[in-house]
Amino acid sequence: MAKKFFSDRNLRFLLYEVFDAESLTRYQYYEDHNKKVFDMMLSSAAKMAKDLYWPIFEEMDRNPPELSNGTVKVHPSVKKILKECGAGRWISSTVPFELDGEQLPIMIAYACQFIFMSANYSASAYAGLCDGAARLIENFGSRELFDRYVSRLRSGEWQGTMALTEPEAGSSLSDIVTAAKPTEKGYYLIKGQKIFISAGDHDAVDNVIHLLLAKIEGAPPGAKGISLFVVPKKRVEEDGSLVANDVTTSGVFHKLGYRGCPIVQLNFGDGNECRGWLVGEPHNGIRYMFQMMNEARVGVGMGAAAIATAAYYASLEYARERKQGRRPGEKDPTLPQIPIIEHSDVKRMLLFQRAIIEGSLSLLVQCSKYIDLEIAIEGEEKEKYALLLDLLTPVVKTYPSEMAIQSISQGLQCFGGSGYCDDYPLEQYYRDARIHPIHEGTTAIHGIDLLDRKTRMKDGKAFKIYIAEMKSAIEEASKDPALVPYSEKLADAAEKLQSLTEYLQSILQEKGVQIYLADATLYLEYFGIICIAWQWLLQGTAICKALASKCSAKEMLFYKGKFAAMQFFYEYELPKILGLEERLRKCDGLTVSIDSTFFEE
Amino acid sequence: MAKKFFSDRNLRFLLYEVFDAESLTRYQYYEDHNKKVFDMMLSSAAKMAKDLYWPIFEEMDRNPPELSNGTVKVHPSVKKILKECGAGRWISSTVPFELDGEQLPIMIAYACQFIFMSANYSASAYAGLCDGAARLIENFGSRELFDRYVSRLRSGEWQGTMALTEPEAGSSLSDIVTAAKPTEKGYYLIKGQKIFISAGDHDAVDNVIHLLLAKIEGAPPGAKGISLFVVPKKRVEEDGSLVANDVTTSGVFHKLGYRGCPIVQLNFGDGNECRGWLVGEPHNGIRYMFQMMNEARVGVGMGAAAIATAAYYASLEYARERKQGRRPGEKDPTLPQIPIIEHSDVKRMLLFQRAIIEGSLSLLVQCSKYIDLEIAIEGEEKEKYALLLDLLTPVVKTYPSEMAIQSISQGLQCFGGSGYCDDYPLEQYYRDARIHPIHEGTTAIHGIDLLDRKTRMKDGKAFKIYIAEMKSAIEEASKDPALVPYSEKLADAAEKLQSLTEYLQSILQEKGVQIYLADATLYLEYFGIICIAWQWLLQGTAICKALASKCSAKEMLFYKGKFAAMQFFYEYELPKILGLEERLRKCDGLTVSIDSTFFEE
Repeated sequence: MAKKFFSDRNLRFLLYEVFDAESLTRYQYYEDHNKKVFDMMLSSAAKMAKDLYWPIFEEMDRNPPELSNGTVKVHPSVKKILKECGAGRWISSTVPFELDGEQLPIMIAYACQFIFMSANYSASAYAGLCDGAARLIENFGSRELFDRYVSRLRSGEWQGTMALTEPEAGSSLSDIVTAAKPTEKGYYLIKGQKIFISAGDHDAVDNVIHLLLAKIEGAPPGAKGISLFVVPKKRVEEDGSLVANDVTTSGVFHKLGYRGCPIVQLNFGDGNECRGWLVGEPHNGIRYMFQMMNEARVGVGMGAAAIATAAYYASLEYARERKQGRRPGEKDPTLPQIPIIEHSDVKRMLLFQRAIIEGSLSLLVQCSKYIDLEIAIEGEEKEKYALLLDLLTPVVKTYPSEMAIQSISQGLQCFGGSGYCDDYPLEQYYRDARIHPIHEGTTAIHGIDLLDRKTRMKDGKAFKIYIAEMKSAIEEASKDPALVPYSEKLADAAEKLQSLTEYLQSILQEKGVQIYLADATLYLEYFGIICIAWQWLLQGTAICKALASKCSAKEMLFYKGKFAAMQFFYEYELPKILGLEERLRKCDGLTVSIDSTFFEE
Repeated sequence: MAKKFFSDRNLRFLLYEVFDAESLTRYQYYEDHNKKVFDMMLSSAAKMAKDLYWPIFEEMDRNPPELSNGTVKVHPSVKKILKECGAGRWISSTVPFELDGEQLPIMIAYACQFIFMSANYSASAYAGLCDGAARLIENFGSRELFDRYVSRLRSGEWQGTMALTEPEAGSSLSDIVTAAKPTEKGYYLIKGQKIFISAGDHDAVDNVIHLLLAKIEGAPPGAKGISLFVVPKKRVEEDGSLVANDVTTSGVFHKLGYRGCPIVQLNFGDGNECRGWLVGEPHNGIRYMFQMMNEARVGVGMGAAAIATAAYYASLEYARERKQGRRPGEKDPTLPQIPIIEHSDVKRMLLFQRAIIEGSLSLLVQCSKYIDLEIAIEGEEKEKYALLLDLLTPVVKTYPSEMAIQSISQGLQCFGGSGYCDDYPLEQYYRDARIHPIHEGTTAIHGIDLLDRKTRMKDGKAFKIYIAEMKSAIEEASKDPALVPYSEKLADAAEKLQSLTEYLQSILQEKGVQIYLADATLYLEYFGIICIAWQWLLQGTAICKALASKCSAKEMLFYKGKFAAMQFFYEYELPKILGLEERLRKCDGLTVSIDSTFFEE
């Protein structure tokens, strides 16, 4: 096991030096908190991650959940983790005081989640799902549902899930067929099948509460006819006892990675006895679910960045310790071998990882702050942050997810043959991270969401606000001579982004929606690179500010390392937009016009 | 299991229509063969792949080799496969007639290997290693060694290995410490440890013959003091009986993929009783080994392309069958869902895979042909092909290896959540293929090899010949109006390559070797993209020739599909050189100057 799985120093740099988390306490909503509380939370999270999550990182992978006698058996520590997450108030950290929560800023709560995820992504998933399910009930459910379920979910006694996906309706939610039949007793009879349900069943809890999408009989077709239900594995009788609710686990998927958390197939109502309770209004299920989705998607990006962060520190440790070869031009075989970190190409692979993970994490903290500001502020400013979050959600989900794969692959490469073997954790990180471009909407879906919806919504208002945000970062950075080369590069890139986006909107008019959206995935990639360049410039400004003040020799190394990672991003990553732009401006509809029969042979 | 793992049609297109394999029979060395023989070999290989390799593709992965009582247990079919490879003369297919081989062109033999590899990469590795070991003995060993080992290796009775890597000398061969002490009896006493030895021990054979690198006592330091030995697991006594030779298997590595073939750790001479026999002259081991290395490296590229090919056909099959969603602008939820192959982004992912795998395979066939021409031709032309092969070896090893990972990742993405589960083969391909950028020299090592040695060797003669080859392809293609846009793009890219390469050589003079080589990996990537564009133009010429002649409707689809894949490469992949060039021309030594202490926090 590597000794380090995240950088506390970097996390605090982002929270305090770049994004001024403390400033949140100036708003009424967060006024009861202060930096001391934040620090304490971060330290507790680090301790819990190290003591509870980290030691079983490999073990959970090597002993994946199995279905046995109708129940999924998971690692024995899951029970303990859920209990401690409940007792430590981690599952209710961002819940308002009035609902008996800690009302902690999202920035801090997510930073703690990031620490857990980097220690053991699979183990961190359980509590996150409890929080999500509880939140849906809090926001949209009746008092009765609230009383029955929320405290059990937030204490970690019961598992929450999001039961959306069906065999014939993977990414196409509007095609789900799970049926809900009203009864006179207030509940609905649920019948259908769900697949890929994370933590959908396991033996570490007494009950599993599914937040399930289904169609009420006679509902309109498509997304507008989908409703949200609470469907417990065991329903609660009047006397408080638990009775089986006709929910059966018909399979557990064997996955490439992320093996510590079961993903299951569930049958509801095989015996026509499965009861579900409507959440909110009928036919509003998608709307409710999507209100949570933005945050779930930030969570996916965070998971990817967290795994890649742990992979980076493992590869850094190896690169420092492993001795191999000599520098070019110093080939005398009688000289001792050097640590591989001294090879330029290894430094390139380390800087690449760092540029990706610290750039991604910066965007994640940025988006967390937007959520906080949206919560804490009233009036027009509120809308600004809501729009920025909306616009950037496909990016903050996808960039870390796609780039984590490449980042971890470079980390694995630093190990040579050892990276391919399970004596080192890289092969597991490589497997674990591959899920992120798939779940919570594939990359293609987010590409279309960004180009088709987000850049155009409210007449492009969000996009305009975003460009203005970048420009203000550019202006600020341009005051420091050390940053001028980078602020100029970002100014140029931002202009390119604006011009390309306008050009593509004209294509929509001229050539229609199919050609317009054909390369939406590449547009998202292009947008993402520029977005991370913006984040690095924000970091650059904070770095230069720190370097200009007095700081210790150790601190100096930290800032200089970060400055190099910023340079790396601008010199190696940002130029990738050139090739993408060349392609994106083509709009030749190559993939639209090619007939599917051309793939015959 | 998918129904198809390679395209016979495409393989024949490359062999016959693009590279005219039949023309080889005009040379004396290959005059005993003809197209009928080639066809027969290809058909037999396809049948054997389908019947023998393909059915156990998953099984071998799920039941990886384990060390038990000192021996590695492998899948029971390995014995049968080795036997059939021997009996079917597959292990001796390219061996000259005079050494009792089939003297088949490399082009054809490698195409057959490609078929085996695409059916089951792990299963194909065993026989390939027997061939390599036998060839080293044939080329450099004594008559005695030849008589004792070669026929047993070529019959598949005994396993051959390449025993190079050591724990403290992974990529740095010059640092190996395995010792060879001469004795008066002609043999040497071997003492040392080797790791990562493919098929280094298993129970499907009676004996394992290691071609091992070691240092004779008192040898000069570094690569110039390394000798090659034959070290059998069991030595052959005068009477033909087999006696244990003090070679012990101390471990089997648990790998991310490629699990059907054991990679082991071996101890030689723990009891001071391990005998080895010198191959050729002392201190020439590296030279002998590297004479084989070019071909081994073509083999690695081929393995990567083969796995990615199988992954492509699996994803294509899924994309045709899986129905999901509707086209943009056709969102009526009462309409039936469409096969996902009808979505532009899925077509993009399929074309991406096809552009990569068919481009890679083309380069592999091209390089195989160079080997054949080098064998068959005498005089100055011989040198031309030797130089081209030498120059392109780092590319033909690395481009398919690096891009297979991305190609398979896109294949996995086509499956959505199912791609992440082992109900489908994509997750295995994703794991299997990750080895290729590592073994037989990492990507970084090949980058340095290409930029530092290959482009400059013989005063840049190989590089000049290569540019001339590209220019002749451009000239040929420019005669067809349909190809003009692409020949122009390649002409532009070739000029860029030439100019950048010259520029980098000037950097060597101005800024020294460290800055010169700092981005060698990116130079290799840049070089590789242009190289594959060249291969696609060669294919384009053959496609247009076929389309101009009369061909069946089915054939028409094949050629049109290929044309689209060519277009895709030029429109989506080639532009990536723009960003790379921007970086490569910088030569700012960012990764050279950054101190390794900057990674402290």
